[in-house]
Amino acid sequence: MIMNEVNVKILVSNDDGIYSKGIYALAESLKELGEVIVVAPLTEQSAVGHAITMKNPLRVTEHIRGGKFFGYAVDGTPADCIKMGIRNIMQESPDLVVSGINHGSNTAINIVYSGTVSAAREAAIMDVPSLAVSVASHDVKDFSYAAEVAKIVASQILEKGLPNGTMLNVNVPDLPKDKIRGIIPTKQGLSKWDDIYEKRVDPLGKDYYWLTGHLVNSDTELERDQFAVQNDYVSVTPIHFDLTDYKTYEDMKNWKF
Amino acid sequence: MIMNEVNVKILVSNDDGIYSKGIYALAESLKELGEVIVVAPLTEQSAVGHAITMKNPLRVTEHIRGGKFFGYAVDGTPADCIKMGIRNIMQESPDLVVSGINHGSNTAINIVYSGTVSAAREAAIMDVPSLAVSVASHDVKDFSYAAEVAKIVASQILEKGLPNGTMLNVNVPDLPKDKIRGIIPTKQGLSKWDDIYEKRVDPLGKDYYWLTGHLVNSDTELERDQFAVQNDYVSVTPIHFDLTDYKTYEDMKNWKF
Repeated sequence: MIMNEVNVKILVSNDDGIYSKGIYALAESLKELGEVIVVAPLTEQSAVGHAITMKNPLRVTEHIRGGKFFGYAVDGTPADCIKMGIRNIMQESPDLVVSGINHGSNTAINIVYSGTVSAAREAAIMDVPSLAVSVASHDVKDFSYAAEVAKIVASQILEKGLPNGTMLNVNVPDLPKDKIRGIIPTKQGLSKWDDIYEKRVDPLGKDYYWLTGHLVNSDTELERDQFAVQNDYVSVTPIHFDLTDYKTYEDMKNWKF
Repeated sequence: MIMNEVNVKILVSNDDGIYSKGIYALAESLKELGEVIVVAPLTEQSAVGHAITMKNPLRVTEHIRGGKFFGYAVDGTPADCIKMGIRNIMQESPDLVVSGINHGSNTAINIVYSGTVSAAREAAIMDVPSLAVSVASHDVKDFSYAAEVAKIVASQILEKGLPNGTMLNVNVPDLPKDKIRGIIPTKQGLSKWDDIYEKRVDPLGKDYYWLTGHLVNSDTELERDQFAVQNDYVSVTPIHFDLTDYKTYEDMKNWKF
């Protein structure tokens, strides 16, 4: 590949942990675009959001997979992995950060809770172009199409760039390639969780609670990530970390405190 | 107060934990507006972002302070506390959620990492009006002015409402009231951290790393939260959880995948 010749460096992370199948498929696929450096959480970090580790020290260990060096494991969060990967392990900014492939979609409100997305968002904060890739199933049998999509979107970013502070959040239906209807740009969906805490009693007679619930689907247009994936499209959503609600900001100029 | 008569219910949480000074000052101040229900993390949860607990069960304990029932402690994150508080403890939506008073400012990029802000943001996701309140010092001697500001902004929200999905992020300088120059609406600042991992060696000869660094101040206008607080203004920033970068979304319609 031409890109390989100019020594493209790609930092790969995830939130399912360095042992997961998704990160292996991703790293293998991206090797066709350049040098891949894996820095991923030692243990599963799903739903940790954009947590970072400040009150405890971090440790970094070399991770062997199939008898070969695969990458660096950090006993922290996905965002920690990006900071540590860029600041200490690489000691330079990569050309691209790719996070995934996540087991389960990260659409609509799940973007807020997702460790996978937060790893890519940390890269965006550090002015490194990035994408997060997820497959819409918790029991993915074959990551090959999602890994191919990651490579396609990564190539586009390497070619066209992204605005500073913007990342792409990619969600792939759990379908064979010939069932996919296309790859389309989308907006964050409106669907949210109806949460339930299921109460149980432990052997000592004390109550405890498990979070459960279901996603209430409020998305009915293909331009929303959740609906696009449900309708067999690969969804690509540009997201950023400016959380300002500009409309309300303008309205508030009339408030009196 | 008139509001008290119509039985206003206010859910109060934080990320510093239920034992902190800030949440006590906040709860006491808000009692003048209505019934206060405290549901806060059992232990400090700073920088956990919007993490939620899914892989472990949660426990809820009653917390006594000064010989009296103060509130409910949850052994989880700030976002967990809001979900648990509304779904299981209150079993109804409060009129308002207030998170804080945080020891340390939550301006600019810190909004992304903040547990205090995420508690209020979880409320916004659940369609409950909310605000987060922080004081710009890690060694606050007197929370009384910040508690007064929380009450002022809370009253405004109860009176005017907020758009669904929007919360207010309030940052208060650590100054006596007579040194404050005003309360102003702001946008999320542009300042970010220059991170450093300080390497140390443990007694067994193994390396470990502490996250440190400093905030690089990129804010030079009073309309930015970070700069407003540094210039002795109380900053009130409306934020939401729609992370879509709409400009890039429009641009991407020309991309070919």
